Amino acid sequence: VVVGSGSLALAVRSLVRTHAGRLLVVVSDARVARLYGRRFAESLARGGARSRLLTFPAGERRKTRETKSRLEDRLVREGAGRDTIVVALGGGVTGDLAGFLAATWHRGVPVVQIPTSLLAMVDAALGGKTAVDLPGGKNAVGAFHQPESVWADVRCLRTLPDRDYRAGLAEVVKTAAALDATLFGLLEARAAALRRRDERLLERIVARCLAIKGRVVAADERDSGPRAILNFGHTVAHALEGASGFRLRHGEAVAIGLVLEARVARARGAFPERDLGRLERLLVALGLPTSLPRAIAAGDVVRLARRDKKTRGGVVRYAVPARIGRPRTGPDPTEPLDVERDLAPLLA
Amino acid sequence: VVVGSGSLALAVRSLVRTHAGRLLVVVSDARVARLYGRRFAESLARGGARSRLLTFPAGERRKTRETKSRLEDRLVREGAGRDTIVVALGGGVTGDLAGFLAATWHRGVPVVQIPTSLLAMVDAALGGKTAVDLPGGKNAVGAFHQPESVWADVRCLRTLPDRDYRAGLAEVVKTAAALDATLFGLLEARAAALRRRDERLLERIVARCLAIKGRVVAADERDSGPRAILNFGHTVAHALEGASGFRLRHGEAVAIGLVLEARVARARGAFPERDLGRLERLLVALGLPTSLPRAIAAGDVVRLARRDKKTRGGVVRYAVPARIGRPRTGPDPTEPLDVERDLAPLLA
Repeated sequence: VVVGSGSLALAVRSLVRTHAGRLLVVVSDARVARLYGRRFAESLARGGARSRLLTFPAGERRKTRETKSRLEDRLVREGAGRDTIVVALGGGVTGDLAGFLAATWHRGVPVVQIPTSLLAMVDAALGGKTAVDLPGGKNAVGAFHQPESVWADVRCLRTLPDRDYRAGLAEVVKTAAALDATLFGLLEARAAALRRRDERLLERIVARCLAIKGRVVAADERDSGPRAILNFGHTVAHALEGASGFRLRHGEAVAIGLVLEARVARARGAFPERDLGRLERLLVALGLPTSLPRAIAAGDVVRLARRDKKTRGGVVRYAVPARIGRPRTGPDPTEPLDVERDLAPLLA
Repeated sequence: VVVGSGSLALAVRSLVRTHAGRLLVVVSDARVARLYGRRFAESLARGGARSRLLTFPAGERRKTRETKSRLEDRLVREGAGRDTIVVALGGGVTGDLAGFLAATWHRGVPVVQIPTSLLAMVDAALGGKTAVDLPGGKNAVGAFHQPESVWADVRCLRTLPDRDYRAGLAEVVKTAAALDATLFGLLEARAAALRRRDERLLERIVARCLAIKGRVVAADERDSGPRAILNFGHTVAHALEGASGFRLRHGEAVAIGLVLEARVARARGAFPERDLGRLERLLVALGLPTSLPRAIAAGDVVRLARRDKKTRGGVVRYAVPARIGRPRTGPDPTEPLDVERDLAPLLA
């Protein structure tokens, strides 16, 4: 994992050096291809590598089996065999999609993750979770496939649309709230600088989030226990995204999900009132939503929450820390959530 | 791994006992569903399990992304979550397809392999290789996904069409020729009984093949070295299948591939003339082809062999044992094969 301003150029040098003779397939959406992808693939070729740029239309709705099939058809036409390396250059959608493409191409070829969005840098690129969405099943088809390396260049964040940048901050808040009280304090103290995309600050924060995530993932690669704390906010967020018809960004849904799940926990005496206040204030300071937007029907959220894929034997589970920066102790950080009784009243 | 007459009934009991409360999804093609699938799913239900039978049209050409997508859409409609167990009940196509379905459903749920064809029993069901075919890329998309258990009931072989039964014998011959001289001797001595589908003999042979394969796979789960010996005959076989427009059965192509690859090795002094003769005679005794059928153009085979997915840096590799039952020593049992120089003359 390399974090820094200018690490994109370092990635090119490293790929050229370590994968001479192999086919490097760079996957980007059309927007990122225009901003970085073409230049990146050209740099690889100038360095002497065999490289191809494969693009797909931008948008969360393109994280589908159909997009993956089209990329696979391209790989066949390019004669890509087992010696292919996939380079995922882009945001969370690209990382999930290209990661899954690599996971199943000839039963698994390496993937290099080069996240260009804040969300992908702090959360999606590391951890090996890859997937596509199905109608009625977010991330329903996918694989665990750890990246060979991750390169996070905070300079890429300059071109990120404001709404996407803020959405990425929600995952930063989640990581801090779940696992790192010091980081949470830093975010509170430097909220304004963070909104301005201060690059020195971003380097520090991205590196910290990746270090935390790396530690949690290493302890639980298949997401069978302790790693679930990283799902703080996500049980409700997935339902919110679905209920919004994916008009809410993932990060926006996570921001609201953090608050709602913390409220459920507080109502049970399992999360401090004071920490709930801090959480809400920080999200507001970072320009993030903290309650259900008017356009989303509470009934849809409830219905979708009950269909969550983390259902085991019909019971939805959610993961809230004991307090800011301190996960619950024990092997399983999750708790059962009764959607009708616990969540529905908070949405009314 | 359980082998025996009547192990289908044992599988039902075991599944009901160990997976109470979880959704058991039985996947079969239409033919096997009619013969065994419906009864099997009903037995599960009678035992108190939640079970569903998912079917797809029979045929090698159905091992596609499209078939997998249709099965996934069914899983969504059935509300299948992470607690799903996939049961692959059928031949090699079903094992590959349902195994891959399980490998990627919610990033991996368990699969139970219940092979009903000889090929699936002795080769496909164990080893964790799962895949679908692409136009121009056999097994191009797939995953390694080890089965939770394998149940081989040789009684199911009674209903297997003769051509499929013989095709399965080719993988038995491959396993013996590559790794077990004693088994090879048994096949030679009991060829006639084997053609008659003697069940006691079949139990013994299937159990032996599964034991050998289990040992090889355990030593090399990801197929990165020693396991390649199980590809004996397959480099050429894949090209033959493609060149025949998949009119050749996989096993028929393997039979021809065994002979052609052994001939290439013999021409290099790397396989004994006497063993080549034994190999050819055994295949003939078992009703299997040993040379290129007239309907297949040699040029197509050569062209497809050069595009083999086991290409590394453009060189095709093949794996022939040093002699019957004795793999080559060293970490890599494969050798480079120059398609134009080594293979093309043998096809003329």
